[in-house]
Amino acid sequence: MTYLDHNATTPMDETVVDAMLPYLRQDFGNPSSVHRLGSKARCAVEEARAQVAAQIGVQPAEIIFTSGGTESNNLAIQGIARAAGRAGHVVTTAIEHSSVLAPVALLEALGWSVTWLGVDSDGRVRPEAVAEALRPETRLVSIGWANNEIGTIQPVAAIGAICRERGIPLHVDAVQAFGKIAVNGSDVDLLSVSGHKIGGPKGVGALHVRHGIVIRPLLCGGSQERERRAGTENVAGIVGFGAACSRVPQRLEMAAGWELQRERLWSSLANLSGVRRNSPRSGCLANTLNISFADVSADALVAGLDLRQVAVSSGSACAAGASEPSHVLRSVGLDERAARQAIRFSLGVGTTDEEIDSARQAVFEVCSAHAQVRKEAARA
Amino acid sequence: MTYLDHNATTPMDETVVDAMLPYLRQDFGNPSSVHRLGSKARCAVEEARAQVAAQIGVQPAEIIFTSGGTESNNLAIQGIARAAGRAGHVVTTAIEHSSVLAPVALLEALGWSVTWLGVDSDGRVRPEAVAEALRPETRLVSIGWANNEIGTIQPVAAIGAICRERGIPLHVDAVQAFGKIAVNGSDVDLLSVSGHKIGGPKGVGALHVRHGIVIRPLLCGGSQERERRAGTENVAGIVGFGAACSRVPQRLEMAAGWELQRERLWSSLANLSGVRRNSPRSGCLANTLNISFADVSADALVAGLDLRQVAVSSGSACAAGASEPSHVLRSVGLDERAARQAIRFSLGVGTTDEEIDSARQAVFEVCSAHAQVRKEAARA
Repeated sequence: MTYLDHNATTPMDETVVDAMLPYLRQDFGNPSSVHRLGSKARCAVEEARAQVAAQIGVQPAEIIFTSGGTESNNLAIQGIARAAGRAGHVVTTAIEHSSVLAPVALLEALGWSVTWLGVDSDGRVRPEAVAEALRPETRLVSIGWANNEIGTIQPVAAIGAICRERGIPLHVDAVQAFGKIAVNGSDVDLLSVSGHKIGGPKGVGALHVRHGIVIRPLLCGGSQERERRAGTENVAGIVGFGAACSRVPQRLEMAAGWELQRERLWSSLANLSGVRRNSPRSGCLANTLNISFADVSADALVAGLDLRQVAVSSGSACAAGASEPSHVLRSVGLDERAARQAIRFSLGVGTTDEEIDSARQAVFEVCSAHAQVRKEAARA
Repeated sequence: MTYLDHNATTPMDETVVDAMLPYLRQDFGNPSSVHRLGSKARCAVEEARAQVAAQIGVQPAEIIFTSGGTESNNLAIQGIARAAGRAGHVVTTAIEHSSVLAPVALLEALGWSVTWLGVDSDGRVRPEAVAEALRPETRLVSIGWANNEIGTIQPVAAIGAICRERGIPLHVDAVQAFGKIAVNGSDVDLLSVSGHKIGGPKGVGALHVRHGIVIRPLLCGGSQERERRAGTENVAGIVGFGAACSRVPQRLEMAAGWELQRERLWSSLANLSGVRRNSPRSGCLANTLNISFADVSADALVAGLDLRQVAVSSGSACAAGASEPSHVLRSVGLDERAARQAIRFSLGVGTTDEEIDSARQAVFEVCSAHAQVRKEAARA
């Protein structure tokens, strides 16, 4: 299988699995238990917390473990809203992941006002647009560091400076950026990351909450995570996430190679008729290439590539099967038809040049098969 | 180590770990991806859903996977409240787990009225008390099937009949009951269960929501779990949970043996001076024995037993380190001092008679060491 869907999820390194195994077997204690089996689990959770914190440049006490990126985003947005106590104003963009869009829409339904910032044809937010949107009652700005579908990287440092100057908390969804570009939590107030996007397990993530920022929990109960996220800790998952974080520097070193492979793929596909590159040429994740193909629907292309042992996706996995075309592609100016013809290739650890060539070959085959069908249909 | 803290968490069977491993390794797809790696993960999640549903006697479509018991309880209570749209009335008991108490308290802070039912000296709720508490504006009744600290089993069938007759949804926290007594979701409207209490992994649980009961999600975003719980599924965790569920019948067969061991332990401790049995003698989980020991604080006893290789807890692991004495023990009539002297022994798969005897011996040693210290202090 040529797996070019690393933005949906990426495999775990065997060393990460190995780090988890003791906590699935003999070291099974509940971290809240005070006996030695509990202490051992507690130590493992705290070591992982330090590993996560180190990779995003924050303090361990600022890290809350969650069940994944979606919970992290929900905890940030709903948690700030709960702490605010009453309706305020929130600023976000039209191209966020559904786990940001949906909780913001929930706030809107509860009486909050929302500014949905537009983006340019590269999918970029202007920092000035953020500045113009801020109001005295703005309680949160939420921006994705890198877009999961097209790979656009946002000017987070500039947006962070604006928010800091105005004293408004900035939440950044770094789920897709983390492990692909340098991500520093000290630039922002709240930062979401996820295990399974960086070679850790599914079902675990973290929210960095800068010291002094007040959020209220979404999951209420026990006093775990300094009373900000109740529930027995997913010890093995957290340990795996920590181990994956400690390997992030190695991932970042691979980005240059991904970029070469991505451009190799693009240059081999660019002269197919009617091809459109939806990912920006600069300021984009090195591993991500979103392309629309004329005359072949994304669904048909994904299925045809799958038959040829090539795994890609049409936009976000979280929206797969959705009847609506990608809101991201519509926001960067694609019409509905072009948005329904878009494929995302996302490279990752282990992607080889041979796989890139296999993918190109498979795309050629599917496109020419479809062209043949059209030709015969026209003749008939 | 003599591990008698199975109510805090219980080890996984190696077959459960084995079931998970492929999904931590080669079968790493995102269940939302449409290619074959995604499909394989999707199939695994749906097979696990069927396994969970089968063990609690409900339909697979009625199962929502969560990150654990705490999330299940929060989703039930907050989810019903969100669907209600405006403040109503909720009925629960004074002895619930913190992951029920806290979200109910949250509703109270939002303007809901709450009836906190008392319990008798066995920790039992009278079904008539539930009936009397119901009001036209009651939106939910939430009762724990079995208490985690003392093991009391509630008359769920009778309470379910009352709620059904009045058309009020009944949520039952079965986290501690599942795998220890027969639990049937068809008696209730919402049912919480957790993986790591039945030999599955930490970080995964489920909420059964009977067809026709409307809840609103807590984690908003992608359309996973029929739009009731967003987020990439914890595939390996879910698979492990399903595998553990399929072994629940074997666990239930062990209950008679646990009861014999529990009574062996009790009869060996009962003649220590000032001992009090806090767990009821009937209608109690077979594996659970909560005892107060005169003149030794629970903290000292847990630590002393730990030094002697015996793992027990003082009440709920989730409340470990809390400065307040157990709300459960206070509710069944213990004074603060006796509540601070209570130890929970909880037996599980693999508990041997020899371990029971080791535990008794260790308790004797710690108690006599403390008596010696007191005697010397009195002499001085």
